[in-house]
Amino acid sequence: MTKSIEFYFDFISPYSFLAYKRLDRLNKENHINIIYKPILLGGLHKLGGITAPAFNERKMKNMKNDCQLVSMKNDIEFIWNSKFPINSLYLMRGYIAIDDKYKKKFFKICFDCYWKNNIDISKEKNVDQILEDVGLEKELFYQNIQKLEIKDELKKLTDKAFKKDIFGAPTFVVNNKIFWGQDRLDYALDEYNS
Amino acid sequence: MTKSIEFYFDFISPYSFLAYKRLDRLNKENHINIIYKPILLGGLHKLGGITAPAFNERKMKNMKNDCQLVSMKNDIEFIWNSKFPINSLYLMRGYIAIDDKYKKKFFKICFDCYWKNNIDISKEKNVDQILEDVGLEKELFYQNIQKLEIKDELKKLTDKAFKKDIFGAPTFVVNNKIFWGQDRLDYALDEYNS
Repeated sequence: MTKSIEFYFDFISPYSFLAYKRLDRLNKENHINIIYKPILLGGLHKLGGITAPAFNERKMKNMKNDCQLVSMKNDIEFIWNSKFPINSLYLMRGYIAIDDKYKKKFFKICFDCYWKNNIDISKEKNVDQILEDVGLEKELFYQNIQKLEIKDELKKLTDKAFKKDIFGAPTFVVNNKIFWGQDRLDYALDEYNS
Repeated sequence: MTKSIEFYFDFISPYSFLAYKRLDRLNKENHINIIYKPILLGGLHKLGGITAPAFNERKMKNMKNDCQLVSMKNDIEFIWNSKFPINSLYLMRGYIAIDDKYKKKFFKICFDCYWKNNIDISKEKNVDQILEDVGLEKELFYQNIQKLEIKDELKKLTDKAFKKDIFGAPTFVVNNKIFWGQDRLDYALDEYNS
């Protein structure tokens, strides 16, 4: 069986962005078999009875400082989004709905817009721009993300993650072992390379 | 002004233990000016409206695995305490009450009992053993930890930490900058050495 590193993410999550950038850099040096796993972080927190740090004054303040620090230490371009938190539902559904050949570009552009370029990705005009940049047809995209099967698919993926004991993002799964947080990317890679 | 690293801790916190062991090792190589800051983690969480990971099924499971992993990666003797969580109130009060010359030994023995030797430090017979090992007089110790001024002192220290935006343990403060979690010990030391 080929080894893989599952990467559970939500565009809303700054630590998912930071982990993605670190993983992407390593992936360019040595190919890593990454399986991208979209989930709805808000849904996962709700299922797990967890209050997100975004909704606690001190945790929020710390997270903002900490993300700046992690980005500097890792030489990652990063701006704390002035419209945090927003609802990432449409774009997460979008990631599922679009054809596989567009996913990589869509993934990069969504994350970069929100955590590198301080763009409010919950606004339709900004989503329109993303779709144009990726090369996706707008009308079809907006139709697809309203389809029951796409809504259900994101719920199903989130439920499935929850049943695996996943409760946050980013989470990495290697050899059925769970590693939570961008701080555990190194441990996940140790397991992957072991 | 002499630089220092403030180390906010509670004996109940496994990550405080792991941070202490890492810091202690580094301190032996190069002297670090550490100021120990006892707080009551439960009280801090309550003030901050935070549910401790110990009280969330998935977070608890993850924390247990993660602590084992961190201890292995850092070559630290560690056993997840089978009586976690307990009430650390008496020992935290004790740390404040005892004479300065005993604090270092008391600190080490309490942490080692709970996170290295799987001892239930909420049981009186085990506290008695700790006191004996440290060389403290039992009767005086038990009298002191019931004194209003000692009770108030621990509350005051916890309140003061909270007002500085501290919300968890371990927390390191260097140059008025807050670093939360044993994962941020390196960043705290970078700041200390800068």
